[in-house]
Amino acid sequence: MTAPHQLILTALPDVPLVQPGDDLAALVLDGLRAGGMTLQSGDVLVVAQKVVSKAEGRLVCLNDVVPSPPALNLAEEVGKDPRLVEVILGESSEVVRSRPGLLVVEHRLGFVSANAGVDHSNVAGEPGREGEPWVLLLPEDPDASARHLGEALEAATAAVVGVLIIDSHGRAWRMGTVGVAIGVFQFPALLDLRGHPDLFGEPLRITQVGLADEIAAAASSLMGQADEGRPFVHVRGLPYPLREGSLAELLRSKSVDLFR
Amino acid sequence: MTAPHQLILTALPDVPLVQPGDDLAALVLDGLRAGGMTLQSGDVLVVAQKVVSKAEGRLVCLNDVVPSPPALNLAEEVGKDPRLVEVILGESSEVVRSRPGLLVVEHRLGFVSANAGVDHSNVAGEPGREGEPWVLLLPEDPDASARHLGEALEAATAAVVGVLIIDSHGRAWRMGTVGVAIGVFQFPALLDLRGHPDLFGEPLRITQVGLADEIAAAASSLMGQADEGRPFVHVRGLPYPLREGSLAELLRSKSVDLFR
Repeated sequence: MTAPHQLILTALPDVPLVQPGDDLAALVLDGLRAGGMTLQSGDVLVVAQKVVSKAEGRLVCLNDVVPSPPALNLAEEVGKDPRLVEVILGESSEVVRSRPGLLVVEHRLGFVSANAGVDHSNVAGEPGREGEPWVLLLPEDPDASARHLGEALEAATAAVVGVLIIDSHGRAWRMGTVGVAIGVFQFPALLDLRGHPDLFGEPLRITQVGLADEIAAAASSLMGQADEGRPFVHVRGLPYPLREGSLAELLRSKSVDLFR
Repeated sequence: MTAPHQLILTALPDVPLVQPGDDLAALVLDGLRAGGMTLQSGDVLVVAQKVVSKAEGRLVCLNDVVPSPPALNLAEEVGKDPRLVEVILGESSEVVRSRPGLLVVEHRLGFVSANAGVDHSNVAGEPGREGEPWVLLLPEDPDASARHLGEALEAATAAVVGVLIIDSHGRAWRMGTVGVAIGVFQFPALLDLRGHPDLFGEPLRITQVGLADEIAAAASSLMGQADEGRPFVHVRGLPYPLREGSLAELLRSKSVDLFR
């Protein structure tokens, strides 16, 4: 019997609803304890964007937003609340596609997604204003958020771990969203296999692997969508060593992208 | 301590190089035995496209191919072997983008990918003609291949399992390939969450999840790229019930795709 390669993903149990100001590292450590787990060097922690944004207080109340003329025009075209469109444009560097019901933008962080990741599901809002229309923006700097969490976990456990902050993105050509990384700490986001020969000495067909997105997708399948009860997924058994990494590795610049 | 949600992916060990005519179900059962594992109902088996294609003998020798005038023209533009381009066009319903070094097509199966999945790495060719330039096409009908394998495994073990046949695809907007499903048997390829309210009774932002692609990506991260030593990945703990499913669920038709 040969010891097999094994990847084990575990959603941390009993995670409470995250509130602005919450300490994510403490919540992760509580969740690990609740699951009877410990962190080891080489482990990866995958975190749903939504709880990072909530902890960082990235809430906006649409009643506080005054839409600009461009937002008013675009809102008319896509059939969305002009205040929401104003918030989306504020998070975007460019509108990539728009049509009724759909607004695809390049987020200021550089990736392409619907509505710049601005979310109005599962958002309770500030105390005393719960009945108002709140939306949640992505973290200001997800790489920094990932680093902050990873360093706090390392300080608490002495384990050298990777951290991915993930969101769900739609795709060109294929139906359904999949988890993708929007923040990366200490993880080989893009595996570069160029120069590795195949079994017969020929160049490989596949030369760069979006490993952070593959692990994001794996973790996303465990998190579910209808609640935020499983926002933290622990990953053990990544068959590659950790290294410094960032979201930027995963972004195809507009100038070399044939599908903008 | 709460029992956590856990997804466990295990690459079957000791899988030999697959040859035309090989019985994939027998190889999977051997691999499970080598790993000390058994199949249970609800498990999923993820299989690299390459070994399915090899077992099905989907090999073409470029020395046997005569390129057509359109293939000659396109080969000139993209800088590829005209015989390879002829094979790619034969597997494609449409050229989506072409430029030097790149040929993105709609495969006859309906998905968009580079080179129609035609691969010339790790292809040994037929005995006696190993020195010639061989390429490997995708399976003729990956859903049928997945069904064939799934039914054989069920017959051998009485376990009701899902099967995904996966390839690695590049993406618009993001760097690096990720595993995606190209053949589906008895698996909820697209999860439809429309109509599920969020925690506060609001509609969900994410309504359809490409679950087969998320599990494909997860398994792909374990398979590696530089060899075909880990083409079978066993998945336990999928947090959704199995059901009938197919590749078609994952395909966005050209008429509603803004990125062709």
